[in-house]
Amino acid sequence: MDALPGQQPAVPGAEDALTALTDLVREDLEACNRLIVQRMQSPVALIPQLAAHIVAAGGKRLRPLLTLAAARLCGYGGERHVKLAACVEFIHTATLLHDDVVDESALRRGQASANALFGNQASVLVGDFLFARAFELMVEDGNLKVLAILSAASATIAEGEVLQLVTQNDTGTTEQQYLEVIHGKTAALFAAATRVGAVVAEQPMPAEEAMDSYGRNLGIAFQLVDDALDYSAAQEQLGKTVGDDFREGKITLPVLLAFARGTEEERVFWRRVLEDRDQTEADLPQAQALIARHRALEDTILRARDYGDAALAALASFPDGAERRALAGIVEFCIARAR
Amino acid sequence: MDALPGQQPAVPGAEDALTALTDLVREDLEACNRLIVQRMQSPVALIPQLAAHIVAAGGKRLRPLLTLAAARLCGYGGERHVKLAACVEFIHTATLLHDDVVDESALRRGQASANALFGNQASVLVGDFLFARAFELMVEDGNLKVLAILSAASATIAEGEVLQLVTQNDTGTTEQQYLEVIHGKTAALFAAATRVGAVVAEQPMPAEEAMDSYGRNLGIAFQLVDDALDYSAAQEQLGKTVGDDFREGKITLPVLLAFARGTEEERVFWRRVLEDRDQTEADLPQAQALIARHRALEDTILRARDYGDAALAALASFPDGAERRALAGIVEFCIARAR
Repeated sequence: MDALPGQQPAVPGAEDALTALTDLVREDLEACNRLIVQRMQSPVALIPQLAAHIVAAGGKRLRPLLTLAAARLCGYGGERHVKLAACVEFIHTATLLHDDVVDESALRRGQASANALFGNQASVLVGDFLFARAFELMVEDGNLKVLAILSAASATIAEGEVLQLVTQNDTGTTEQQYLEVIHGKTAALFAAATRVGAVVAEQPMPAEEAMDSYGRNLGIAFQLVDDALDYSAAQEQLGKTVGDDFREGKITLPVLLAFARGTEEERVFWRRVLEDRDQTEADLPQAQALIARHRALEDTILRARDYGDAALAALASFPDGAERRALAGIVEFCIARAR
Repeated sequence: MDALPGQQPAVPGAEDALTALTDLVREDLEACNRLIVQRMQSPVALIPQLAAHIVAAGGKRLRPLLTLAAARLCGYGGERHVKLAACVEFIHTATLLHDDVVDESALRRGQASANALFGNQASVLVGDFLFARAFELMVEDGNLKVLAILSAASATIAEGEVLQLVTQNDTGTTEQQYLEVIHGKTAALFAAATRVGAVVAEQPMPAEEAMDSYGRNLGIAFQLVDDALDYSAAQEQLGKTVGDDFREGKITLPVLLAFARGTEEERVFWRRVLEDRDQTEADLPQAQALIARHRALEDTILRARDYGDAALAALASFPDGAERRALAGIVEFCIARAR
């Protein structure tokens, strides 16, 4: 796979960081997966059917992995983190189901999306069910601090999603607004996922905040890279979907940078394709060419690297060891996806 | 307004029961309304705009009224019930927003529905926000029993809605399944709304269960009457919408009774209009005629009255007084709507 132009060569083994993290907490993750399957059951058969499609099939379980590893890094020796990791995955899954309805997506992780297979109506309602089930799991855990963190994150996710909807098709969106969107839709749950790891380990506030900072910065880096990949030629060569954001008129950093740096003629192009959503087959390659001309992908990745560095810095106060190295590796993993 | 054929004449003043209850807890309700407006705020302007459309405009606040009055009936003298009443209303509002998306409704309480005005996407996401905000309010209250009751109710609501979706357009739906649907989509939140009133008043388990039973039976009665009203000629004369369930192919008790009691020819009609959803203008009057022929509305209302009686019986263990009389009046109010 080609590196994005201007990027450093891949750190050796960066792609294996997810495997390393998964191996490190394998038993916990397996317990979490069993709990997920168990708690998505319902006498209403369509619920586990639809949930299985999205929860059980695929997905790298990145967010629950973060909760599991954060708890262990903070010295936690119990089992409560398994339930909280399942909570985090349920919240994530509920938002995926609703996102796909909102975006009218036909594909998710390269397969037919739940809304395409089961209909928008079922996706909305099963998303609601998983969200409620996440809260039931949290209540069973019974820690009010955990409940406060995850309920606040859930509200922030919804705010981020609404802001994304409002700024969609608006090339006047500011970088600040874009950052608020990705903070809400992605980073808030990453931050909550890692923070509850510190809370369950009864760490003092500075450690809790450091875990929050790690997750939050990682989440922003993750989303910046995701937004770059949507225009990446390397991604296209791998047969992965490219141009989803473009077709939906989503305003992401690659577009904002290309727009800001573009000529008036280029801005006319961007307004036509993203605001009016008047697109032809040739427009995505044209968008990719403009983004390349203005080095907008490289600069998006550089920005991701800055947030990644902040995530690494937040880890520094924790004891060195397998957990810290695995979580540091995840930063590289998230950014290395762009190559 | 004409009484439904076969019904007893309206109990004098039954229509005023809602006013009586509202007057009784007016200060609490006003505090609750202020809290609702305050807590639906967000820096993302579309959220309060859309929320105001459905939360602030109209709605009789029946569920929060139940929480407020139940707490007072149980001797509670504090202010926590105000926050819990707002929670209950937020959960209810979130489900209304998602219901309207699922049903593709153009109208809600006689006005343009939120999804018609703001789009399905915004309705899904703002529903998620209100649901998350409800949990934040509960977490602020900090009582794990309340959290368990309301999170379990939320999951049950979603299960009921999914079951309704699954049984929609299926004339083979059993009465038992129908009861499960209305228990989930309506009665579970009524039960939780009244039960948390007892919990906040620190009542022993029998009182808690009696409050739950009152709310649950009231909720089923309420929904049975709602389902009858959708075919009611009296309702039509008042200029209210009739036939929404019919057009959506929802399987409700009036239809189940008419179908079970109908000839094979009538069943062919029901299958065409509800299963195939092949409907012409003349079909709603024809459905109403068949329902009338088999006394299906009367029997639906009789069933509602049975549940209403069970709700009244559950009140008997509480001290007589203004609160108990007001809550008893609400049973009559819910059933008297059918006249």
